[in-house]
Amino acid sequence: MRMYDIIMKKRNGGELTREEIRYFVEGYTKGEIPDYQVSALMMAIYFRKMTEAETYELTMAMAHSGDMLDLSGIRGVKVDKHSTGGVGDKTSLVLAPIAAACGISVAKMSGRGLGHTGGTIDKLESFPGFTTALTRERFIDNVNRIGIAIMGQTADLAPADKKLYALRDVTATVDNMSLIASSIMSKKLAAGADAIVLDVKTGSGAFMKEEKDARALAEEMVKIGKSAGRTTVAVISDMDQPLGRAVGNALEVKEAIDTLNGRGPEDLMELCLTLGSRMLLAGGKAETEEQAVEKLRDAVESGAALKKLAQFVEAQGGDSRAVYHTELLPQAKILLPVPAPQDGYVSHIACDEVGICSLILGGGRETKESEIDLSVGLVLHKKVGDYAKAGETLAVIHANDRAKAEQAAQRFLSACTFAESAPKRTPFIKAVLSQTGGA
Amino acid sequence: MRMYDIIMKKRNGGELTREEIRYFVEGYTKGEIPDYQVSALMMAIYFRKMTEAETYELTMAMAHSGDMLDLSGIRGVKVDKHSTGGVGDKTSLVLAPIAAACGISVAKMSGRGLGHTGGTIDKLESFPGFTTALTRERFIDNVNRIGIAIMGQTADLAPADKKLYALRDVTATVDNMSLIASSIMSKKLAAGADAIVLDVKTGSGAFMKEEKDARALAEEMVKIGKSAGRTTVAVISDMDQPLGRAVGNALEVKEAIDTLNGRGPEDLMELCLTLGSRMLLAGGKAETEEQAVEKLRDAVESGAALKKLAQFVEAQGGDSRAVYHTELLPQAKILLPVPAPQDGYVSHIACDEVGICSLILGGGRETKESEIDLSVGLVLHKKVGDYAKAGETLAVIHANDRAKAEQAAQRFLSACTFAESAPKRTPFIKAVLSQTGGA
Repeated sequence: MRMYDIIMKKRNGGELTREEIRYFVEGYTKGEIPDYQVSALMMAIYFRKMTEAETYELTMAMAHSGDMLDLSGIRGVKVDKHSTGGVGDKTSLVLAPIAAACGISVAKMSGRGLGHTGGTIDKLESFPGFTTALTRERFIDNVNRIGIAIMGQTADLAPADKKLYALRDVTATVDNMSLIASSIMSKKLAAGADAIVLDVKTGSGAFMKEEKDARALAEEMVKIGKSAGRTTVAVISDMDQPLGRAVGNALEVKEAIDTLNGRGPEDLMELCLTLGSRMLLAGGKAETEEQAVEKLRDAVESGAALKKLAQFVEAQGGDSRAVYHTELLPQAKILLPVPAPQDGYVSHIACDEVGICSLILGGGRETKESEIDLSVGLVLHKKVGDYAKAGETLAVIHANDRAKAEQAAQRFLSACTFAESAPKRTPFIKAVLSQTGGA
Repeated sequence: MRMYDIIMKKRNGGELTREEIRYFVEGYTKGEIPDYQVSALMMAIYFRKMTEAETYELTMAMAHSGDMLDLSGIRGVKVDKHSTGGVGDKTSLVLAPIAAACGISVAKMSGRGLGHTGGTIDKLESFPGFTTALTRERFIDNVNRIGIAIMGQTADLAPADKKLYALRDVTATVDNMSLIASSIMSKKLAAGADAIVLDVKTGSGAFMKEEKDARALAEEMVKIGKSAGRTTVAVISDMDQPLGRAVGNALEVKEAIDTLNGRGPEDLMELCLTLGSRMLLAGGKAETEEQAVEKLRDAVESGAALKKLAQFVEAQGGDSRAVYHTELLPQAKILLPVPAPQDGYVSHIACDEVGICSLILGGGRETKESEIDLSVGLVLHKKVGDYAKAGETLAVIHANDRAKAEQAAQRFLSACTFAESAPKRTPFIKAVLSQTGGA
């Protein structure tokens, strides 16, 4: 078998076999096939696309390119949750404790943030002492004891995907549905959970700007999960404005805690109930969606979910007092309100721009090496559809540097559009796709 | 400017600017842009194609990536001739002396053969002592004195093309008309001639199997030549069977000499008159095509062309006695006739297979490092359209190894197809495209 023939076959519109896909993934991971042949193949795939069978084989080959995590030491159905990334996305911080309080085993791999979207690990580090550097033994033990553990992505999970993604990133071959889906799913499959819940975002703050693209990606991922024998659910939700009101690491943690106290923003709660009910159904903890939602609400109202968060933070070395005393979380020195420049309805908020405001303030990473300031960010007082009188506060900037605060305030204002009449409301949850593994 | 953006632009169907093309060609030549980005761009170009303007800019950027040969020391119009490669293609050996005898300055860069097609330099080395390792001074002086010089391709002519071609060769991105045309033309433009005569082959022994592809390539090259201000002519001719009857280095030299003696095969002579008349017109040595053809025929009949060959061979260190005594050329020890297996018309000869017969005998290079046997090859006694009775000789194999001779004979037979009725004749010259530079 020769890589040249594989490139030629794909270039000419042929369907690659399992053997051909394994040959190139294994050869590339071992360094036997050079970057320049693989990038040519990726570009050919960009133009020719991949069939469902090819996408599945690529995912499996990448999943098996390194370690496959063995979670059999964890009792019950293990559920992993993945978000395609957005601005103000603190869903995992709320969802994991609620689901765990309902008896689900949440065994999650998480990443750090890069660019205008944040990462769950960064947010959790707002709890002083919190760490995701767990051994596998402690990871498994924590899930068994308290129902949740979150681990940083270890280097040997799907190394082929890591290498391939880095190459695609510099050769303009990222945006192909099959390649994106196989990249996400290879890591999820290697991470060993029985069920996978995918939070696919769409809109101006998401990787998938168009709803049809988000839907296509969700479909690809659900199909892969099914073929791999894992129960897979995808929820497509709106990311055309930030999720909730808080953007910035500690600010989002505080909002997550508010939500677990029953005082959170509506959209965040709706998303957590939608994703959570699928997790309960997948884990056999509810018979119907209604029953699942009821259980999830109970976990919040009883305080069980908040207690679960405290246990989880403590089990990973963090100061759990901050769960009950949010003033112990990192706090910014400067609070700068952004007043509305005119009367009117907020008709649009360019969501990725809001992420960039947080980046400007020091709350995100421009490169992998950047140090981040956990305390900064912004809190929206008005969201799309709200009416604001001139001078009313649209958002409050949390900063530690006056110049950066002014810059972020300016940028935030430019991201907002106003109108005389209320904008048309679109549903927050766009679709739910689900598939039982192996069915 | 970033290479990433250039790849993305092309991938999305945009037209690259002169600056973008120069940026990537220069960066790649200097080693500042990595192979993996360039191969992704080449694959994007394969799918999106290039406009006439892009093709021209790529050609010019590659031509200027190294030395531009200065032939201003040569008097008169300098004409270069290039063949896209075929089996039994000894055209340059005939054409150069005839044209030079008519007063044209033939300043030619030549390559060695690789795979099933031969190279002019290898063929000329059949003259004991012949060398193409000329200094530029001697090259120019030879053209001025005798009208012909042939030089091996020096390393610093169009180095970008050399590097890019090697990359395309291993990434399945060779067969795109614009890339092929720019590769050929960049070397021709750097080689400095005023006029370029292109011999574009089509058929089973050619790189372009289909006539429409050969025509498209010819058109691209003529357009580039025009934009670059060089008179450019392309002749599309048949390579569905070997040109003439001889295939193999010394055998082809002998056939070329026979042709210069007025006893050559018809197709070869027709091609030389077609190409030659365009050279005379381009060089201002004839007013009309008819006049040009008459001059060319005169050069043969008077013996002036043959004498020119002898002068040329001698000027490059070769033993010119072989021009008049072809028995001094390398001779194979074994002559093995291949008899016709049945009565019938030869309806097809798979031309690249005949090239492979020569390769088997040791007359060609499988890799760049192969040593070749100049004496071996085969001479066809029957060509397409000829009738053969069973047992009549189809071809004679010239070999130095009995086993290889048998193997080549077998392979040759498999390459021939027979029919009860005569095959339909197709024209040997398919088209002539010409364009005065800068018009």
